[in-house]
Amino acid sequence: MQRALDIDRSRFADWYQAVVRDADMAESSPVRGAMVIKPWGYGVWEQIQQELDRRIKATGHENCYFPMFIPLSFIAKEAQHVEGFAKEMAVVTHHRLKNIDGKLQPDPDAKLEEPLVVRPTSETIIGDAFARWVRSHRDLPLLINQWANVVRWEMRPRLFLRTTEFLWQEGHTAHASEGEAIEETRRMLEVYRAFAEDYLAIPVIAGEKPENERFPGALNTYSIEAMMQDGKALQAGTSHFLGTHFAEAQNIRFQDEAGSLTFCNTTSWGVSTRLIGGVIMTHGDDDGLRLPPAIAPKQIVVVPMLRDKVEDAEVLKYCDELVGMLSGERIFGQPLRVHLDIKKTKPTDKRWNWVRRGAPLILEIGPRDAASGQVTYMRRDALRDGDRVKSITKPRQEFLEDVVQLLAEIQAGLYAEAKARLDGNIKEGVTDWKYLEDYFAGDDEEFKGWLKVSWSRPSGPDLEAVETMLKELKLTIRNAPLQQPQSFARCLFTGRAGVEEILIGRAY
Amino acid sequence: MQRALDIDRSRFADWYQAVVRDADMAESSPVRGAMVIKPWGYGVWEQIQQELDRRIKATGHENCYFPMFIPLSFIAKEAQHVEGFAKEMAVVTHHRLKNIDGKLQPDPDAKLEEPLVVRPTSETIIGDAFARWVRSHRDLPLLINQWANVVRWEMRPRLFLRTTEFLWQEGHTAHASEGEAIEETRRMLEVYRAFAEDYLAIPVIAGEKPENERFPGALNTYSIEAMMQDGKALQAGTSHFLGTHFAEAQNIRFQDEAGSLTFCNTTSWGVSTRLIGGVIMTHGDDDGLRLPPAIAPKQIVVVPMLRDKVEDAEVLKYCDELVGMLSGERIFGQPLRVHLDIKKTKPTDKRWNWVRRGAPLILEIGPRDAASGQVTYMRRDALRDGDRVKSITKPRQEFLEDVVQLLAEIQAGLYAEAKARLDGNIKEGVTDWKYLEDYFAGDDEEFKGWLKVSWSRPSGPDLEAVETMLKELKLTIRNAPLQQPQSFARCLFTGRAGVEEILIGRAY
Repeated sequence: MQRALDIDRSRFADWYQAVVRDADMAESSPVRGAMVIKPWGYGVWEQIQQELDRRIKATGHENCYFPMFIPLSFIAKEAQHVEGFAKEMAVVTHHRLKNIDGKLQPDPDAKLEEPLVVRPTSETIIGDAFARWVRSHRDLPLLINQWANVVRWEMRPRLFLRTTEFLWQEGHTAHASEGEAIEETRRMLEVYRAFAEDYLAIPVIAGEKPENERFPGALNTYSIEAMMQDGKALQAGTSHFLGTHFAEAQNIRFQDEAGSLTFCNTTSWGVSTRLIGGVIMTHGDDDGLRLPPAIAPKQIVVVPMLRDKVEDAEVLKYCDELVGMLSGERIFGQPLRVHLDIKKTKPTDKRWNWVRRGAPLILEIGPRDAASGQVTYMRRDALRDGDRVKSITKPRQEFLEDVVQLLAEIQAGLYAEAKARLDGNIKEGVTDWKYLEDYFAGDDEEFKGWLKVSWSRPSGPDLEAVETMLKELKLTIRNAPLQQPQSFARCLFTGRAGVEEILIGRAY
Repeated sequence: MQRALDIDRSRFADWYQAVVRDADMAESSPVRGAMVIKPWGYGVWEQIQQELDRRIKATGHENCYFPMFIPLSFIAKEAQHVEGFAKEMAVVTHHRLKNIDGKLQPDPDAKLEEPLVVRPTSETIIGDAFARWVRSHRDLPLLINQWANVVRWEMRPRLFLRTTEFLWQEGHTAHASEGEAIEETRRMLEVYRAFAEDYLAIPVIAGEKPENERFPGALNTYSIEAMMQDGKALQAGTSHFLGTHFAEAQNIRFQDEAGSLTFCNTTSWGVSTRLIGGVIMTHGDDDGLRLPPAIAPKQIVVVPMLRDKVEDAEVLKYCDELVGMLSGERIFGQPLRVHLDIKKTKPTDKRWNWVRRGAPLILEIGPRDAASGQVTYMRRDALRDGDRVKSITKPRQEFLEDVVQLLAEIQAGLYAEAKARLDGNIKEGVTDWKYLEDYFAGDDEEFKGWLKVSWSRPSGPDLEAVETMLKELKLTIRNAPLQQPQSFARCLFTGRAGVEEILIGRAY
């Protein structure tokens, strides 16, 4: 069977790389671990930014921009934070280059007194500003967001999933009370859940990370976890309740109504370009990427079937009209994004190009369509009938009437497909460690899905023991879902009384 | 006379700082030369981004993202480029921190083999990608834009105008012919001119920079120059024709229709957060900032005159209705941006807060307005009648009918005011160097405006001599306007035949 990719999902890691490349999303750069995000990949990021930004603002947050360089001493202030991040930062030590003996190099006379690190995250530099901005309870809550690039040195980079530099948004807030800060942490987790499901068509499970997986310095870390087509988990967004840890390290205090100085409770939360990797691994198929219409840079691509013949003019005119009519429609609160592909390449190359890129609807308009006022199209979510590519022909008027509904259907269909995969692959009722060991034995790459098990929520060394047991099977605890049952089985690890259900799986 | 600022424009540099601070636009950070852009300042940047991005896309460009770290060897490739930038770059030398003897420091075991510089501009790293992406004439033109942060070490930083880290967009394009690349360079200059004038209400003069002011590695550099209220010039955007310099250094070649390999001609062009400094110095007055409605994060602010009395509920209800009605209107292709200020501070503090921030229309709605269905407002562009703040009261219906026109009028008025200043302060017909010397003698800070003079367009050492003469008076050549006369006076500097008119002035 001829496919648009030369590899299928049975070799998932290679398939992923092939989709990123053939859908023209991104590529490696000469800077180890840093990627070039190409127009089609960046176009998806722009859609993500636009809608998520709207939702972040709708929940009362304002955007700012903070320096990307952080003085070393700032990082050192919060002890756990140092531990968590100190191992992977880019360090700026000089502010000038000099030609010495014919070789360009850092100028020894321009060594910084204090090295600067490139932000791996901005709690410390934003906290410093918060300490200046917060004076009274009237200044609270302080609700800030930033869209920025961050750097965490990666030894084993993978495009979108783990890159040394990546793009993200990071929310940072300060509150008068613990309760309000916890509420904020959960509110933003819910914003992420709804965004992932409604917009990216990625079903997720929202829950709390175990102690050992918390953000360095956080009291609670929440995440949304998505299941990729190889059964592995992708942490797709996190939200942290930081208590007064950072406020104490950075002196973020306010005068409360009674007049006494009190430390703020702070939160932070973020999602990144990693989401694009999640979209690919959730929706891609053996022909390449399939993009949910909500985030497709072009939702409809019109390919005129030009043959260097006189009819070409009629076909182009008809296509122009069609694009004009479609561009007047709206979906997901935005005008339809329609593209007329008039590049000087063969129509069949165009078809496969847009199939690989995952444009939701691909229209192929030939002389017959133009002459009889009809539209011939392919649905990227249901490209084939058996092996054959499925083209549908409809009168233009009917297509125009149906198109918004059709795109909504594609969006819903992609979600339903992924939702069925998630729901169908969480094994429950396992109470026996031996069973788990057997289940995850063998080929690491085989589809396994996740397990949902009860545990006694051990802490400290007991939790470390659990972590080690799991690590030998390349497993981690993903989160404890927000939705919990009334009663629990015994703890899978300790045999003690269970107090919580957690998800276990392999992960990116 | 009571003003909203404690300083007026007669001390322009201090006044500028006061506006940036009191309009809550930005502040210095603990990282020398890097600023924190606060919500109101960032909101202006978001408006700039949104509209300029639309215009950049409308001219056929696509957004990408490239790594911010550039290998040192890349910078070294283009000789003039090295010269121009090597003096001011942040250099990353390590990728890990380590706690050594209780002190966090760069880990000596994690020293990079090749240092990385933080992009001061991205010609070299984007050129590297272009060399991979361009194969055939069918791949051209390649039209790319990037929104990013860049770093150029600043010894004398000034918020928005000169900061070590700043935000910008940088366009990079590759073309099959010199003619097409020059056309692109000029097209983007025109995009900047139109954007500055239509959207920022900043009149500019578009022209070509002299040889000594070219971008390092460019064959031609064009700029738009704006006149600030102290008579100094602000370079507000640049567009560079790079010829084949970068293509040769980076091997960006294509197979032409005849089948032979040819170097591309490339361009680059950019504007930055410096534009915000330009907006402040063009439109600010002794009460603070005045924002052109097109870029005001909030175009209309509604302040309910609450008095902790029973009427408050009626006032709030009336304000809510008003905000709802106003939000339904559109201007500049966008919904009106209306804000209801319900912070728990005094109405009079709110008034001065929004005056300093430059919200175009400030509505103060009290019980009398609510009871009689009217609106009381201030125009920020014409705040005072003599010393007195001028409030206007109108029936609500009339206000709603007029509001879009009113905002358009404010936009046009701010432009006209700045345009009159620019046009009225370019001295022409000076042919005598002595006159110029006398004219610019004395206080550097006194308002002088610009001179438009003829010159013989000297090159090399002759140009250096001119540069030195001007430098002694703290002057620079701004540009040679695109609009040139038919004939020229003798060269002011050399007495030779004039071939071009140029603008001379002091500059930021």
